[in-house]
Amino acid sequence: MNLQNSINLYHHLNGLSRSRVPSPLKDIVKYMNEPGMISLAGGLPHPSAFPYSAMQLQIYSPEADVATVSSKSSALLDISVGKYPSLHHPNNLSTALQYSVSTGSKSLSAFLYNFVQRVLRPAYSDFEVLLHFGNTDAWNKVVNLLCEPGDYILVEEYTYPSAQAVWAPMGCCGVPIPLDKDGILPEALERVLSDWEQVHPGVRRPHLLYVVPTGQNPTGSTLPLERKKEIYSICVKYDVIICEDDPYYFLQMPDYVPPSERDSEGIAKSERVTDDSLVDKLVPTFVSLDYQGRVIRLDTFSKTMGPGHRLGYFVCNPLFSERLLRASEVTTQAPGGWSQAIIEEHLTAWKHEGLLRWFNNLRNIYTIRRDWLCDLIFSVFDVRPSSDGIADDYIVFPKGYGSDQDTGKRHMFSFNAPKGGMFLWIKLNLTSNSNYRTLKASGEGDPEGTLETKIWMEMIQEKAL
Amino acid sequence: MNLQNSINLYHHLNGLSRSRVPSPLKDIVKYMNEPGMISLAGGLPHPSAFPYSAMQLQIYSPEADVATVSSKSSALLDISVGKYPSLHHPNNLSTALQYSVSTGSKSLSAFLYNFVQRVLRPAYSDFEVLLHFGNTDAWNKVVNLLCEPGDYILVEEYTYPSAQAVWAPMGCCGVPIPLDKDGILPEALERVLSDWEQVHPGVRRPHLLYVVPTGQNPTGSTLPLERKKEIYSICVKYDVIICEDDPYYFLQMPDYVPPSERDSEGIAKSERVTDDSLVDKLVPTFVSLDYQGRVIRLDTFSKTMGPGHRLGYFVCNPLFSERLLRASEVTTQAPGGWSQAIIEEHLTAWKHEGLLRWFNNLRNIYTIRRDWLCDLIFSVFDVRPSSDGIADDYIVFPKGYGSDQDTGKRHMFSFNAPKGGMFLWIKLNLTSNSNYRTLKASGEGDPEGTLETKIWMEMIQEKAL
Repeated sequence: MNLQNSINLYHHLNGLSRSRVPSPLKDIVKYMNEPGMISLAGGLPHPSAFPYSAMQLQIYSPEADVATVSSKSSALLDISVGKYPSLHHPNNLSTALQYSVSTGSKSLSAFLYNFVQRVLRPAYSDFEVLLHFGNTDAWNKVVNLLCEPGDYILVEEYTYPSAQAVWAPMGCCGVPIPLDKDGILPEALERVLSDWEQVHPGVRRPHLLYVVPTGQNPTGSTLPLERKKEIYSICVKYDVIICEDDPYYFLQMPDYVPPSERDSEGIAKSERVTDDSLVDKLVPTFVSLDYQGRVIRLDTFSKTMGPGHRLGYFVCNPLFSERLLRASEVTTQAPGGWSQAIIEEHLTAWKHEGLLRWFNNLRNIYTIRRDWLCDLIFSVFDVRPSSDGIADDYIVFPKGYGSDQDTGKRHMFSFNAPKGGMFLWIKLNLTSNSNYRTLKASGEGDPEGTLETKIWMEMIQEKAL
Repeated sequence: MNLQNSINLYHHLNGLSRSRVPSPLKDIVKYMNEPGMISLAGGLPHPSAFPYSAMQLQIYSPEADVATVSSKSSALLDISVGKYPSLHHPNNLSTALQYSVSTGSKSLSAFLYNFVQRVLRPAYSDFEVLLHFGNTDAWNKVVNLLCEPGDYILVEEYTYPSAQAVWAPMGCCGVPIPLDKDGILPEALERVLSDWEQVHPGVRRPHLLYVVPTGQNPTGSTLPLERKKEIYSICVKYDVIICEDDPYYFLQMPDYVPPSERDSEGIAKSERVTDDSLVDKLVPTFVSLDYQGRVIRLDTFSKTMGPGHRLGYFVCNPLFSERLLRASEVTTQAPGGWSQAIIEEHLTAWKHEGLLRWFNNLRNIYTIRRDWLCDLIFSVFDVRPSSDGIADDYIVFPKGYGSDQDTGKRHMFSFNAPKGGMFLWIKLNLTSNSNYRTLKASGEGDPEGTLETKIWMEMIQEKAL
């Protein structure tokens, strides 16, 4: 397929990112990293004075069974990184622990570029991959790339709380877009944008959508492909940049099925996938629809290798990538050398296939956990498919009351079995809750908060018994 | 000594940092890290799914001779970090690779707090130590803590170029303070501040001084104690916050002496110090004079353990520390888990004494290098102590011309032997340079730049021969 280059989106940059110039010192470091070049002014300590000689690490084999790996040394691989490079082992501590250009390791970036091309499949040709310190760092950099104080940012109605804590102090405002069990509603997004001038005369129309497409925190929703397509078209029409914050992308799960339809290891019989078919089981990314380069994708190793790596990567157009790099040079610099060296060594040992196998294993682990939680609800309560007017798949009643005609009274909560991520969101039906009604009738100022505290305290006491 | 608490410096915070609120999720993580507490909404992956089993690292013994350590295994210490904590080894990968509160490891911070108290000796009682990602990250956070667009920042006349690249795009301006061979001139600083309203009517007086007190980049100057005292008093008088960016603090060197006055290992005979006396040989820090808490000190492991750690720490008052933490929560989060775990394990093995011994070794290494460079100048050229009107210690002439009466004509360059850091700054005397005069007479647009390129190209060709 012949892909086009990204379009020019310069007009989205804010004043700060337009004003950035390359860090004067980073040029020196750049040359320093070229063979045979030497600089006298970079402040680079000599690697002989780094007090480390070598590192060894025992990592899981990608097919390791996480539950038993610690007792089976056959499930472990030894990797090591020495102080100096050798012909067949270029990764080394002298480089990892030195200053580097803020793009970080070339070979790690190249591995990820190839992986992105194969698995995430951007729909334009000149996409770039740029390392960052995890998606919190990355989202902060995106806000500082695109937003001016006073800007409105399109967000999910229930958005990731930490994401707001970046832009709110900058004087930006969120425009909440309604969600249902499959994520934000395209028609609601379009309405906000088409009515903007009328509703907010004189205010700049939002030009950035922040979205967590997979296993959204807190709702647990995952956007289906058709919705992603609709949302992308709307963003093209109204010239909106999409920031796709997708830490749970590889933790997508098959649909929830009753225990009888699972195999002996707890995986849905119809759904056990090979490493290769995993890619086809995943809902395609926003970048895979992005023929213009208006999506900034945030990927991270936090949910798949451990958050403490503080390592992830942007997928975006070269203009944005270059400006993000300029910002990194004078703020964070390149991600930590240990994380880079370890992930590089690790991925070199695992290869694409190992990484996909690991993701597949993780998907199975999270599926088993999701199923355990859903099974528990099914076993403790009466659960019925939802009727009209309830946006969730399941309505839950006290045991024995699920077949009552007058269901409204006994409806305790509703939920969906999530298709990705780590969150199962339970929506309590407070109008049928007698404790809540009593609290409200008593004139309690914050009956929801008081009830919530009461429920948690009871659960803690139950745990303590 | 009974030290006072810091004074209230809230009025220095900019609008952004006043508006920050604690990240909603970090409270969850905080409780998560307390024994017995559990959260259901933090997005914390289970550590059993971190694909690492254990790490081993060979580090130098603190008394290792850097030149020969690789050939002597006796000079190496083995350290290791396992996946899970044990009674006598609390440091572990499950914690290091998990999300954490943005303060990072409590035990690492406690080690550093004790080290700071013993060695850097803040002059107020409620100082705090907060981890950061190295001084570039730290300076960016300080600018975003204190500066509004349009603010003027007091900087050394020749300042660290990368430091400007943070605030210039924010619309801040630098106020260059003249330097001599010992760093910025207190009287020049005072003049700028006392004359501010007259010279810049209607413009807010600068309230932040950025200074690299040791081995300044690029001039190589080190501020003597008396000057630090004067500068601190001026900053108290005019209510200025001092950002003490001090990556080279432990790389302070004895005065340059001729080879005959050095011992067999190349260290000045009068200057060989024990680990304990090292602390007394170092010029005291700005924080050691800071009885009000108006100094924000930036320390880093970059120059002493390797820049790739991306790990350092602030020393500052609790108000600033809390606001810096709020910013970290929504931008970088805590420093990388590998770096924290490794430095913690490393410092636990070395202890304060080992760290001071290592710093002392580094001081010796850099002294030998500084001396080698100065010796070379003395051997290739005629060098004379400077006369009045030249701000440097030494003036350099072509071999054989140092005793001429008409020295002005032959004066090639001047320099100081630095007392810290990595930089020896050579000031070319262009007025006596015939190449330069020819270039200038020819109407060349940028004679300095052209001459510089010519000199570098000749040096490269000489190297290639």
